[in-house]
Amino acid sequence: MRDASTGDLVTLVSTSGIDLAGALAYARDVGQRSLGALTFHQRAVLLKQFAVALTERKDELYALSARTGATKQDSWVDIDGGIGVLFSYSGKGRRELPNAKVYIDGPVEPLSQDGSFLGRHIYTRLPGVAMQINAFNFPVWGSLEKFAPAFLAGVPTIVKPATPTAYLAEAFVRILVESGLLPEGSLQLVSGSLPGVFDHLALGDLVGFTGSAATAEKLRARAADGVRFTSETDSINASVLGPDATPGTPEFDAYVRQLVAEMTTKAGQKCTAIRRALVPAASVDAVIDAVRARIDERVVVGDPRTDGVTMGPLASTAQRDEVLRQVARLEAAGGEIVVGSTAGEGAFVAPILLRFRDAAAPAVHEVEAFGPVASVLPYDTVAEAAGLVARGGGSLVTSIATHDPEVAVELTTRISAFNGRVLLLDRDDARSSTGHGSPLPNLVHGGPGRAGGGEELGGIRAVLHHMQRTAVQGSPEMLTALTGIWHAGAAARQGRHPFRKSLAELRVGDQVASASREVTLDDIETFAHFTGDTFYAHMDEESAAANPFFPGRVAHGYLLVSWAAGLFVDPEPGPVLANYGLENLRFLTPVSPGDEIRVDLTAKQITPRETDEYGEVRWDAVIRNQDDETVATYDVLTLVSKS
Amino acid sequence: MRDASTGDLVTLVSTSGIDLAGALAYARDVGQRSLGALTFHQRAVLLKQFAVALTERKDELYALSARTGATKQDSWVDIDGGIGVLFSYSGKGRRELPNAKVYIDGPVEPLSQDGSFLGRHIYTRLPGVAMQINAFNFPVWGSLEKFAPAFLAGVPTIVKPATPTAYLAEAFVRILVESGLLPEGSLQLVSGSLPGVFDHLALGDLVGFTGSAATAEKLRARAADGVRFTSETDSINASVLGPDATPGTPEFDAYVRQLVAEMTTKAGQKCTAIRRALVPAASVDAVIDAVRARIDERVVVGDPRTDGVTMGPLASTAQRDEVLRQVARLEAAGGEIVVGSTAGEGAFVAPILLRFRDAAAPAVHEVEAFGPVASVLPYDTVAEAAGLVARGGGSLVTSIATHDPEVAVELTTRISAFNGRVLLLDRDDARSSTGHGSPLPNLVHGGPGRAGGGEELGGIRAVLHHMQRTAVQGSPEMLTALTGIWHAGAAARQGRHPFRKSLAELRVGDQVASASREVTLDDIETFAHFTGDTFYAHMDEESAAANPFFPGRVAHGYLLVSWAAGLFVDPEPGPVLANYGLENLRFLTPVSPGDEIRVDLTAKQITPRETDEYGEVRWDAVIRNQDDETVATYDVLTLVSKS
Repeated sequence: MRDASTGDLVTLVSTSGIDLAGALAYARDVGQRSLGALTFHQRAVLLKQFAVALTERKDELYALSARTGATKQDSWVDIDGGIGVLFSYSGKGRRELPNAKVYIDGPVEPLSQDGSFLGRHIYTRLPGVAMQINAFNFPVWGSLEKFAPAFLAGVPTIVKPATPTAYLAEAFVRILVESGLLPEGSLQLVSGSLPGVFDHLALGDLVGFTGSAATAEKLRARAADGVRFTSETDSINASVLGPDATPGTPEFDAYVRQLVAEMTTKAGQKCTAIRRALVPAASVDAVIDAVRARIDERVVVGDPRTDGVTMGPLASTAQRDEVLRQVARLEAAGGEIVVGSTAGEGAFVAPILLRFRDAAAPAVHEVEAFGPVASVLPYDTVAEAAGLVARGGGSLVTSIATHDPEVAVELTTRISAFNGRVLLLDRDDARSSTGHGSPLPNLVHGGPGRAGGGEELGGIRAVLHHMQRTAVQGSPEMLTALTGIWHAGAAARQGRHPFRKSLAELRVGDQVASASREVTLDDIETFAHFTGDTFYAHMDEESAAANPFFPGRVAHGYLLVSWAAGLFVDPEPGPVLANYGLENLRFLTPVSPGDEIRVDLTAKQITPRETDEYGEVRWDAVIRNQDDETVATYDVLTLVSKS
Repeated sequence: MRDASTGDLVTLVSTSGIDLAGALAYARDVGQRSLGALTFHQRAVLLKQFAVALTERKDELYALSARTGATKQDSWVDIDGGIGVLFSYSGKGRRELPNAKVYIDGPVEPLSQDGSFLGRHIYTRLPGVAMQINAFNFPVWGSLEKFAPAFLAGVPTIVKPATPTAYLAEAFVRILVESGLLPEGSLQLVSGSLPGVFDHLALGDLVGFTGSAATAEKLRARAADGVRFTSETDSINASVLGPDATPGTPEFDAYVRQLVAEMTTKAGQKCTAIRRALVPAASVDAVIDAVRARIDERVVVGDPRTDGVTMGPLASTAQRDEVLRQVARLEAAGGEIVVGSTAGEGAFVAPILLRFRDAAAPAVHEVEAFGPVASVLPYDTVAEAAGLVARGGGSLVTSIATHDPEVAVELTTRISAFNGRVLLLDRDDARSSTGHGSPLPNLVHGGPGRAGGGEELGGIRAVLHHMQRTAVQGSPEMLTALTGIWHAGAAARQGRHPFRKSLAELRVGDQVASASREVTLDDIETFAHFTGDTFYAHMDEESAAANPFFPGRVAHGYLLVSWAAGLFVDPEPGPVLANYGLENLRFLTPVSPGDEIRVDLTAKQITPRETDEYGEVRWDAVIRNQDDETVATYDVLTLVSKS
């Protein structure tokens, strides 16, 4: 492999003599075992440590990245972007996953009248290996964005980087190996060609492919039944200038800035780059002029190690040849080069904007020049623009520059089914926007059809793609044992007040059942005047009785939960540190003066924190009246000390 | 097609002369348009009306069903089961989906520090048609379980029933057509062979296939890129008798009852039926004896229209030949018939139980006899049993009969990745269990690998399989316009108190911003003594200050939300009928004596009900202190009158 700017030899890459079956067996055996010993939170903590280890040595990565043709800014996207994914998944894993090994999906589904038979959906990790097959353009980010969710799920990864930039992927994997932090077998690297790989994969394994749509289709056909195949392929993404965003508006300017950024960042070698600029017919000339002016003013093509250079070469001369071949196809199909030219030396190509007078020309919706190349197409109506977006056959992203909510809503609802991501750009978010071409760890990345039909990232969504969803049916007792979450109907233990128990002692099912307390009209009056909540349903018998839901004056819902706290609380200092919230409160039966209420509070879910001296405890609260009718149900959220 | 019991001709089936392209175009054009005009709730209301229309004429369906070889009980599963799916989706659609056309997935993802750039995931319906390719065994249920979620999503359906029982599918579709309730183009039927169907499908279309794994694989390869292909195939499902469930235990009895039920219901022609009975080696003889005794006692094979018959024929003599061929393969691989025999007339086959002394024999994990046939396999340890379950290569369902939570947890966590559903059977749920073989509308149906790798049902999960998930990035204003849900940072309108506005007048963004109110130590004392909540953080300065989260004595969280209600409420009778709940309450900043609080309450989401004179309004509540710090955030849930 050669330096993209100088042509100097960087390294040799080969898989000769590799024992791929051995690598896979090692992942499935040792990797599965070492990751299976950890909870989601423990894996999440490690992700942060990986991020720190890479940050400490990122200069080494930047130096190698420059050899791939990346500018500082390009390297930042790849290297810091990749590290950012680790940080993001570390945080999300601890905030949004339980400190456990099984993930629960959705609420309890009651399956019998008597409550003895329930359904619940769980996710458990796939038993195989996540095989990455990556593209050359983001050797660090492209690998880490797949690794982080797989690792968090508990599935070991084998990275197969694209050969042209494999030396950069090798470097980050080496840093992680040298950090000593990796659980055994959780991450391996195989660089170079792997012709027989699909013969080795089976049910329980995953393939995450990034690259061209044509290659994806071939590989998908080779994947055995039961192998999960996710692909994220370069697509013919669009950016639409809204009819309201005429020259002179902030949206017009934001649109042009973004278009130039997408053409030049990473020399346009991004799956998410804008290939089709859809512009109201009347604004086409203005857009072309503005793009030309901005490129002239801002873009300096050259060796990224040279001061002042803002755009590097393509990854190789082979890549340049390929891009120019596709530009020629676009020209043959009616595209006229209106900015830039195909001249250039080595792997260097200047930004090229083509103009199509016929927006319906098939080639512009099908041909991709994977470099600093975009085409401007005219449209007349919003419906027509939506139809043109769809002509791409499925895209990773479309952006829309408009300040008109009607345009935004109409376009977005019409094109969403053809896109994995839609960015709405206007004066309010132009400065804070992360840009058309930037996948973010908390948003799904991928798109239908031509874009590969897969999904990556999107926070916990991507973790779940590495797991199997299973419906489990059983008694409350069994579902409690399986999930670690107390299910109503399972055994509850009374005795020492659970507020006196630290996390070390507390168990799900520990319960306090309160005494009863009568609610009088006087109490309702007192509460109303103390709080100021004199809503008529509490204060006026006649009006309250006329309300379809109340028999007459009733107690405030907030009175009931406040009293319930008074009934279940154990007031002395102890391990329970704070009530930090409440969820899913439903008032089911009104409480009239003379009714009595009592509350059962049961430890439902215990989530010790890995890096604090306390954790979260979720309590199941049920308020009932003197007739055993359920008055209210909710979850109380507390912080409880570990000791 | 011939009557399964008598061999009489029932009907002729042919697709000759059919205009399939026309049917698809009609669905994509007219069907998409008519469904697109409706909200989720409007579609859900129609599903219930369909269910009622079918219920009124179900005698016609039962009469036809008997001709397919189905007993009353079999027909009940197919016909009433199918109608039940419609009822279930009607209810879930109204309870769990917004009364809108776009579904929101997950919370807001903040993408910028200043709150001007947010991310949100939405689901919009696929723009094509849902093509059902169904199996012969459940012509009504198998079609309605696919139709209900597609319809709710807003995607038109074309039903292609299996030819042998197509006349029953035709009958239910005819009833729906004659009801006059179907939105134009939302449901079509094509019976018979459709060799070129995949040439007509494209991005935006779906195929839902039920049938054999071999056929699924062939069809999947033919589906164009971008067509969503879901398959649910018969798999080699297992049922495990736990080591604790020795003869004489309730679990042993429940296991045997369930095994016989699965062998005989629908004459064992169910994708979910038990094919492998995994039994502790010491209990194999007892299980065989108990199964034999129960079959002798309970099972009468014959024409299902004859009194006393409990098990009908297979669907055809061709099907019988196929089943006996597979039984012969199992025998050749070491299976010994220990209950029943292969003798029989016409399409009738008696229940057959085989015994394998070598549980590792490959054939028993691969060969399916799609009839009243199961095999008993011995195992020694729970880990071995888990490994045997996995040998099926992916199953729709495995059941486990055990009363030992440790066995249940170990087996379930080991086998979940190989199963779409796991049923835990014990003395507590044996009576209420819906059974190994019964998919339920609220639980996912489908399984990995050999089971097809697809998912159907599972409540709203299946609706979303007909929609595209898209990440949308934009300003709060734009996301509010797109989703119909108010996003913090978007414009809010103050003026007339929003509690004075009916659903006809209320708009998201309508807001009341309260005055401030000081919290005194006296207030905290009063509240503590009134509610009984004398937790030390409110009562004891020294202990409170020692708590890591509090500066000293602080106000009760429940005091704050109670006061907030007093601050925002407009007490006179009006369109706001009740506060029925509260969600996502988080206490973020403690409130000390002397602090002031105020609250902003903003209409966030409005969900008018289709069949009531009121609807739900969700309000965004934010309590802030005198320094503009956020004290608490939550959603208030109210019922508001339409007029």
